[in-house]
Amino acid sequence: MSTTTPTVPKKGLEDVVAGESSICYIDGQKGVLAYRGIDIHELADHSTFEETCYLLWHGKLPKRAELDDLKRKLALERKMDPGIIEMMRKFPKHALPMEVLRTAVSALSFYDPDENANDHDANVRKSLRLTSQIAMIVTAYDRIRKGKEIVEPDQTLSHAANFLWMLNGEKPSKTAEKALDVALVLHADHELNASTFAARVTAATLSDMHSSITSAVGALKGPLHGGANEAVMRLLFSIDKQKKDAVEFVKGMLAEKKKVPGFGHRVYHTEDPRATHLRKMSEDLGKSSGNAKWFQMSRAIELYINQEKKLNANVDFYSASTYTTLGIDIDLFTPIFAVSRISGWTAHVIEQLDDNRLIRPRADYIGPKYPAKYVPMEQRH
Amino acid sequence: MSTTTPTVPKKGLEDVVAGESSICYIDGQKGVLAYRGIDIHELADHSTFEETCYLLWHGKLPKRAELDDLKRKLALERKMDPGIIEMMRKFPKHALPMEVLRTAVSALSFYDPDENANDHDANVRKSLRLTSQIAMIVTAYDRIRKGKEIVEPDQTLSHAANFLWMLNGEKPSKTAEKALDVALVLHADHELNASTFAARVTAATLSDMHSSITSAVGALKGPLHGGANEAVMRLLFSIDKQKKDAVEFVKGMLAEKKKVPGFGHRVYHTEDPRATHLRKMSEDLGKSSGNAKWFQMSRAIELYINQEKKLNANVDFYSASTYTTLGIDIDLFTPIFAVSRISGWTAHVIEQLDDNRLIRPRADYIGPKYPAKYVPMEQRH
Repeated sequence: MSTTTPTVPKKGLEDVVAGESSICYIDGQKGVLAYRGIDIHELADHSTFEETCYLLWHGKLPKRAELDDLKRKLALERKMDPGIIEMMRKFPKHALPMEVLRTAVSALSFYDPDENANDHDANVRKSLRLTSQIAMIVTAYDRIRKGKEIVEPDQTLSHAANFLWMLNGEKPSKTAEKALDVALVLHADHELNASTFAARVTAATLSDMHSSITSAVGALKGPLHGGANEAVMRLLFSIDKQKKDAVEFVKGMLAEKKKVPGFGHRVYHTEDPRATHLRKMSEDLGKSSGNAKWFQMSRAIELYINQEKKLNANVDFYSASTYTTLGIDIDLFTPIFAVSRISGWTAHVIEQLDDNRLIRPRADYIGPKYPAKYVPMEQRH
Repeated sequence: MSTTTPTVPKKGLEDVVAGESSICYIDGQKGVLAYRGIDIHELADHSTFEETCYLLWHGKLPKRAELDDLKRKLALERKMDPGIIEMMRKFPKHALPMEVLRTAVSALSFYDPDENANDHDANVRKSLRLTSQIAMIVTAYDRIRKGKEIVEPDQTLSHAANFLWMLNGEKPSKTAEKALDVALVLHADHELNASTFAARVTAATLSDMHSSITSAVGALKGPLHGGANEAVMRLLFSIDKQKKDAVEFVKGMLAEKKKVPGFGHRVYHTEDPRATHLRKMSEDLGKSSGNAKWFQMSRAIELYINQEKKLNANVDFYSASTYTTLGIDIDLFTPIFAVSRISGWTAHVIEQLDDNRLIRPRADYIGPKYPAKYVPMEQRH
């Protein structure tokens, strides 16, 4: 072990600063989240996913012509090599959407016009392409596995509306489009979360954008990261199926020392600022769709957990009822997370490569004392 | 930013301890590398790749029956779903071996009999399968892109010999088999190198083995990690093609402030202990093949750089001439690194999951001061 090795930090690099970044500002004590310094509440109220992409990639809000240009390019990139579609059709139908997304993103690299370029401008182009392509892969594979025709993209729609169009084959209501758009803004970036960190570790070897995003998709697949809102929804479904009272049900979970999903966050010690908007969206969608059941169950559970455990709802808690009220299948929750987070992942890869150093930490060795003997085979008992 | 955030460490997490591990012991000052406490020199002289796999996965040297069992299982796993082969045949022929390996490893997840299991035993089985499969993917794709028939695996051969057999369609000489086997032992693990760290970050979200290994392959693809021996060989080829004197050539590079690849290592401040064996292997192969050119050029460069820059050869420097003397194409050097390192990657994923915590560091925010104003579109100039 090198003599300069410092004291062992907390597990999981908790509170360890892994590098500098100018993308995302978080104050966990005050419950603040901001992209490029702009508060998430402002962005949720006034921005769009497309504008947020520009902000993350270019570090400032776009002027009209810049935003129009980005929207046009995102729409033009709503196309995929037939090789990708054919590949997905051949996959076994039980393949999970996240396994397919990880594989398809990896394969997109050799169809990319900038395949062998890794400079700043090429990576901005790849960011744009991947943002359009990931939304199409998620929707196309969902149609393929259900035996439905793939819906052709509509270049006149917003990113959120085109996603719902390609998923359902129906033009979404303004309320549904707005709800998904706000969800995409809220999930777009979150500093060095595990998937973004996996992307940066990968990028820092001077590998390429597709390798980095493939790593990020694989990390997001884990239930401790992308999977939490699925767990929330499975809980709500389970309570509903058993016709139980939501509060009584979670009271029973707590009595059995079970963890109620969707509460608490390593970084926030107050309410997750994203939860504020998702709660409102879940409530609004409940009203406008005439099905307020999932919102009401969620709200009852939230109030009880606030009181009993002093824990706050996190981003995952109300995204569950929001997506379900939008008619989205539970195993598409994490892919939709990727449809949004691709904007932040790519911004972080670009930032990493603009001032790169290999990310290579050390381990605290706790194994057999060196030098352990190489015991010849005949002496091993 | 949380108030417990410590001082910002050096970039790239240099010398930061990211967790405990009992797999690999490195003393960078003394030039020591050991797997499970056993010195790499002992393993290079006496062990085999199969035995090293057992050591890495199970933490101890195998008894005879245990080693036989592992060899039998590795040989039995020399099979792949036809879906993977068909998928690779459809890829554009310009796809790089590392892009294809990353994509194929990702796709293997939905053909794996333990697809949805993530427990210790299932992950040992996946480690074994992936070790056999990665060797086959690398060789099969190389044959496919060259328009050659895929060579059927031979279950009677060692891992190293079967790799050379499937690559070349000829049974390797004992010298060639031994050289590759030792190279596989030497590259099997190296603590928290970037690709292993990417695998652990991915695994720590409780994602799965295939996601983790896909991340590792993507990280290894980067020229700062897996690509260094390719750069060494391109240098040797370039000197040879221009009929230059090797020492004069690198003298010119130094004068132009160019970096000579294959020297120095973030962790080792003395000779990389793996270089010692690769130097000898390069020399032996040069003699036995009657082509000592690459070894001799390498040795001349090494002596000059030692003297002028006080830098030592690293693992990559002599693996270049070794692989070239074995008749292996330059763009297979990094895939062969993966063929070996899969043993260490999988051991680290298993260790991570046996005592898991999400790996989620923080960033030092240096962007626009919060709160930056959300300027309405019409006021942006």
